[in-house]
Amino acid sequence: MIRFENDYSEGAHKKILDMLLETNMEQTPGYGVDYHCENARNYIKGYCEDDTLDVHFLVGGTQANTTVIASVLKPYQGVVSADTGHINVHETGAIEATGHRVISVHSEDGKLTAKQVWEVYHNHWNDVTHEHMVQPGMVYISHPTENGTIYSKKELQEISRVCKELQLPLFMDGARMGYGLMADGNDLTLSEIAGLCDVFYIGGTKVGALFGEAVVIRSEKLKKDFRYNIKQRGGMLAKGRLLGIQFEALFEDGLYFEISKNAISTAMMIRDAFREKGIEFMYDSPTNQQFPILNHQQKEKLAEDYSFQHWAKVDDERDAVRFCTSWTTDEANVKKLVEDIKKL
Amino acid sequence: MIRFENDYSEGAHKKILDMLLETNMEQTPGYGVDYHCENARNYIKGYCEDDTLDVHFLVGGTQANTTVIASVLKPYQGVVSADTGHINVHETGAIEATGHRVISVHSEDGKLTAKQVWEVYHNHWNDVTHEHMVQPGMVYISHPTENGTIYSKKELQEISRVCKELQLPLFMDGARMGYGLMADGNDLTLSEIAGLCDVFYIGGTKVGALFGEAVVIRSEKLKKDFRYNIKQRGGMLAKGRLLGIQFEALFEDGLYFEISKNAISTAMMIRDAFREKGIEFMYDSPTNQQFPILNHQQKEKLAEDYSFQHWAKVDDERDAVRFCTSWTTDEANVKKLVEDIKKL
Amino acid sequence: MIRFENDYSEGAHKKILDMLLETNMEQTPGYGVDYHCENARNYIKGYCEDDTLDVHFLVGGTQANTTVIASVLKPYQGVVSADTGHINVHETGAIEATGHRVISVHSEDGKLTAKQVWEVYHNHWNDVTHEHMVQPGMVYISHPTENGTIYSKKELQEISRVCKELQLPLFMDGARMGYGLMADGNDLTLSEIAGLCDVFYIGGTKVGALFGEAVVIRSEKLKKDFRYNIKQRGGMLAKGRLLGIQFEALFEDGLYFEISKNAISTAMMIRDAFREKGIEFMYDSPTNQQFPILNHQQKEKLAEDYSFQHWAKVDDERDAVRFCTSWTTDEANVKKLVEDIKKL
Amino acid sequence: MIRFENDYSEGAHKKILDMLLETNMEQTPGYGVDYHCENARNYIKGYCEDDTLDVHFLVGGTQANTTVIASVLKPYQGVVSADTGHINVHETGAIEATGHRVISVHSEDGKLTAKQVWEVYHNHWNDVTHEHMVQPGMVYISHPTENGTIYSKKELQEISRVCKELQLPLFMDGARMGYGLMADGNDLTLSEIAGLCDVFYIGGTKVGALFGEAVVIRSEKLKKDFRYNIKQRGGMLAKGRLLGIQFEALFEDGLYFEISKNAISTAMMIRDAFREKGIEFMYDSPTNQQFPILNHQQKEKLAEDYSFQHWAKVDDERDAVRFCTSWTTDEANVKKLVEDIKKL
Repeated sequence: MIRFENDYSEGAHKKILDMLLETNMEQTPGYGVDYHCENARNYIKGYCEDDTLDVHFLVGGTQANTTVIASVLKPYQGVVSADTGHINVHETGAIEATGHRVISVHSEDGKLTAKQVWEVYHNHWNDVTHEHMVQPGMVYISHPTENGTIYSKKELQEISRVCKELQLPLFMDGARMGYGLMADGNDLTLSEIAGLCDVFYIGGTKVGALFGEAVVIRSEKLKKDFRYNIKQRGGMLAKGRLLGIQFEALFEDGLYFEISKNAISTAMMIRDAFREKGIEFMYDSPTNQQFPILNHQQKEKLAEDYSFQHWAKVDDERDAVRFCTSWTTDEANVKKLVEDIKKL
Repeated sequence: MIRFENDYSEGAHKKILDMLLETNMEQTPGYGVDYHCENARNYIKGYCEDDTLDVHFLVGGTQANTTVIASVLKPYQGVVSADTGHINVHETGAIEATGHRVISVHSEDGKLTAKQVWEVYHNHWNDVTHEHMVQPGMVYISHPTENGTIYSKKELQEISRVCKELQLPLFMDGARMGYGLMADGNDLTLSEIAGLCDVFYIGGTKVGALFGEAVVIRSEKLKKDFRYNIKQRGGMLAKGRLLGIQFEALFEDGLYFEISKNAISTAMMIRDAFREKGIEFMYDSPTNQQFPILNHQQKEKLAEDYSFQHWAKVDDERDAVRFCTSWTTDEANVKKLVEDIKKL
Repeated sequence: MIRFENDYSEGAHKKILDMLLETNMEQTPGYGVDYHCENARNYIKGYCEDDTLDVHFLVGGTQANTTVIASVLKPYQGVVSADTGHINVHETGAIEATGHRVISVHSEDGKLTAKQVWEVYHNHWNDVTHEHMVQPGMVYISHPTENGTIYSKKELQEISRVCKELQLPLFMDGARMGYGLMADGNDLTLSEIAGLCDVFYIGGTKVGALFGEAVVIRSEKLKKDFRYNIKQRGGMLAKGRLLGIQFEALFEDGLYFEISKNAISTAMMIRDAFREKGIEFMYDSPTNQQFPILNHQQKEKLAEDYSFQHWAKVDDERDAVRFCTSWTTDEANVKKLVEDIKKL
Repeated sequence: MIRFENDYSEGAHKKILDMLLETNMEQTPGYGVDYHCENARNYIKGYCEDDTLDVHFLVGGTQANTTVIASVLKPYQGVVSADTGHINVHETGAIEATGHRVISVHSEDGKLTAKQVWEVYHNHWNDVTHEHMVQPGMVYISHPTENGTIYSKKELQEISRVCKELQLPLFMDGARMGYGLMADGNDLTLSEIAGLCDVFYIGGTKVGALFGEAVVIRSEKLKKDFRYNIKQRGGMLAKGRLLGIQFEALFEDGLYFEISKNAISTAMMIRDAFREKGIEFMYDSPTNQQFPILNHQQKEKLAEDYSFQHWAKVDDERDAVRFCTSWTTDEANVKKLVEDIKKL
């Protein structure tokens, strides 16, 4: 069985393991104040071209989302998100468990538009009963989205401008950040993202690390006492250097970006194979997640040798499914898959 | 200005005020363990034809909804509700503030169907990633709904049966219970409702009382330690007898049902007047809330002498609005309104 | 049985009932934006000699405490309180239910000192592991305290000064405010209290009203969106005017202060009677709560005709008990009690 | 600088790193359902001599404590803990953030007694106002405690018996479990602990792993849907196998127990050195944490070459400090320290 069901099936990049081995017997202080974390912070701030940023390392995505969002909102506020957003769908109500509603907005492709943010805000404040409703308090977007799509620079600039105007902090979930930055057609740099968001994170779990997400905060207000929030939400790793070392490995010389390319090139091979077969896609994704629409026979056939995820029923005959590639997807496996797609 | 904007514009029924005056200097223990509360409990249990019920008196609807729902759910569970449900729309995220999601289901008329409950439940459990999603833990319905509609006996029996089968406690928000029980075409009694729900409440605030909701619990599991929940959520009134006295007045000889009729008869006068004028309605409501669809000219004309609520934009020319009547709506005022409707 | 067990055994002052009757059929908007609430706000701002204050009316004390505290604190902050404070002892964890710790400090007499506030703050910030501990975020005091004691002007000024210096909002629970203001030896006015606290409330439930607490906010930061918090915590009364009318009655011409005197004079009669008998007190209270230390025989004897509250075991022979008077305590009943104390 | 400030200064045992390397390119399903986790579960159940146990792997201690406690308590319940307990002192209010109070009981040595549990319970239920107070809902103990002390078999049996009788689930925080099991004088086995607690965890972070805690659940009631709780609290690691592999390494052939011995033998060397010098200890600890009481001169002298933690001021002349050893503490370093202690 060759696994395309998700982008966290394997361990970590060799360089990370090597560094963990080398540093294993070093004695460092705990909780992320060691020199590895400090190095990693500096590398990331370098790529973001902004020395004033705060960088914190958390273990996972749900933890990062929950910690950030609960640190921003007032009790009566909610976070605006596409209805497809990870916080709205796949975090077992982690946001609600901190007391806040996810104010979901319908999205066809996983993206939120500046216009939608504008409307949610004004629909709230124009309603005479607004005090009886959850107040929009921040905006959450994923990049790439859960559907594989990415924001263009223009789209992100517009959302950012609206958020600034409405004083809604903008938070980007970058669990798959590398795959967005390396996607065909992407016109955003990490530095531009850092300038347009109030807070965002760079995902390690799905891009080369064993685990770990680097939360980057630009807003002065959000920086204050953020470590208390990390500790309270269970996200302060005792051996914090383990996170520092991984992001050191990924960012000291651009490894993060380099390895992300493999996910894209292999995903494009899969995309092209389905396309050539005349198979349609649920979303037009330039990143590492591909959502072909297969009929039952095709689905069963491919399931014999490959694991992939059922995504959604399209009609009585067809389902959308998800194939994921990653930084370490083996091209040989993809070639085998491509051959089998051809035979469908 | 004659007010039809809501059903809590006035004070309380005269009998309630008389009893408050008469009993004012009595000395009683606090927190709802006095004899007035006990009397009121017994009257309500009598109408419910079930001596084993627990009855608690809370001050308001949001408080009652929050206290009940938070007492039932486990941390990772949510409450299934129509998207029009009060808890989903007009309680400033009170449910989320206790850590739980409102799992909303689209409803055209404010009602939830047994089929929808069934689907939400099975969609959850059939999803392989269900542990990553909020688990449906109970069902919330309003009767009458926020749109004025009511459940038929058959509909409620079906929901109740599905809830039992799926082990989802069924909770009915009866903030306007009296107006449902007295509606034309209603075929449910309070006793039947008590038998079909695990917990529900009988609204006093909108039906004759100054304030107060009587929470009735049938489920043994939900009865346990409920008073702790009331206290924790800020709902344990020091002078608890004030609630007891009001429900004593309303239920010792059926006053609650009697005064509810006035809301229905006056609402039907308004409904007929709009109908005769050829004006359509957003919902087909047999209760005290009516939702005519007015054009801008009609709306402005009526707004000169009457207060009513904007409900929803229907198209560029027309809005749905809400007219409410109540236990104390003055027939003379309604006749004046009817005349003015004729003149539109 | 004559009741001295608490200060909420009876209903409300006659003037309040009269006004409720008179206004009963008025039609007003809901949720506290009617003219009665507006009048009451203005009267209270007048007594506080500060037009810029915000005044909100809530139903009860636990609700007021919870709503205020949860609106002030960040997620990782707690509220500093005497260990005897109501929020620490008798609210079923309502504060914790909003996600916050009560940071309790030991008090012999119910009062917190400026020095204790200073120490809690600096103990926190001087600890190298402070990020692993709950950060002190505000200060809660009761006046009078749960033990009947009151703050002197000097004490309150010192606490206020320290709180300002440390940027800790100061919140005063004034559930029995009237009894503090009318106590022998009190040197604080309502206006001075309003100037020294960031937020406080004036208790109605225990001082003449059926129910209701008037939350007064001076801090601009705390004013923002406070009504959202009220609604979310279940404290926004539909017929909000019921609260407005009661505080109108109490504050339009000083009735609140006037009726508070009765509680003091009757409490002093009881205090003197115990003192003359050589009976000691647990706390030296100049207000409506008295805590004599009775031996078992004395306790049983008095319990034959009077209800009072067991407070604490003092030794194998003796218990402290609590006798409460109120705005409506009947002097004849107190004289009877005094006679019975003499006979002990 | 040689570090004795905590027991998580280094990485992981070599065997763990080797296994991570070997398995790095395996493709496994995520979220802890892979075969490594399954192996680790079986090994742990073997040592616990109970096949019916549920075993879950979480990343850290605060996360494990929060997830377990929030999964057990009803909203109005709190967790009974020694005031020295980690949840009461060093988790930034993580328990309160889930809505629950830590009901702290004073302890001199970090241990809770069966008598204290009994008293907290009965003090609550015997109080007539108990509905106004947080209800004790479970018991939390640490073993070894934060002060290095351990429970004897007799003590744990007594607590367990009282908890069963009072229907309070018993939860043991075993962040340093290995060091308790290997301590001189310990008479408890892992299997006995598993039989006496309803839920407990075996700490990996401080005992050989990079990170990770193995939560073991005996109570059927607590087992239900526990994975939802893990996900909601941000504790479900995408590459769950990383935890499985580590506990596989530690428990397949008893490595966990073996390496724990090093912490004990080195700690005893340090203890003996201080003792011989006539230096007193704050607690009598047979485990890896030692709390000598040093005068300022001694403290400064040792601080030149060693890092250790300030624990508490004892008097104007002396402070208690903490020296920690671990599974990997270098005996050479300890010998150097011993020499330097001699020279004090």
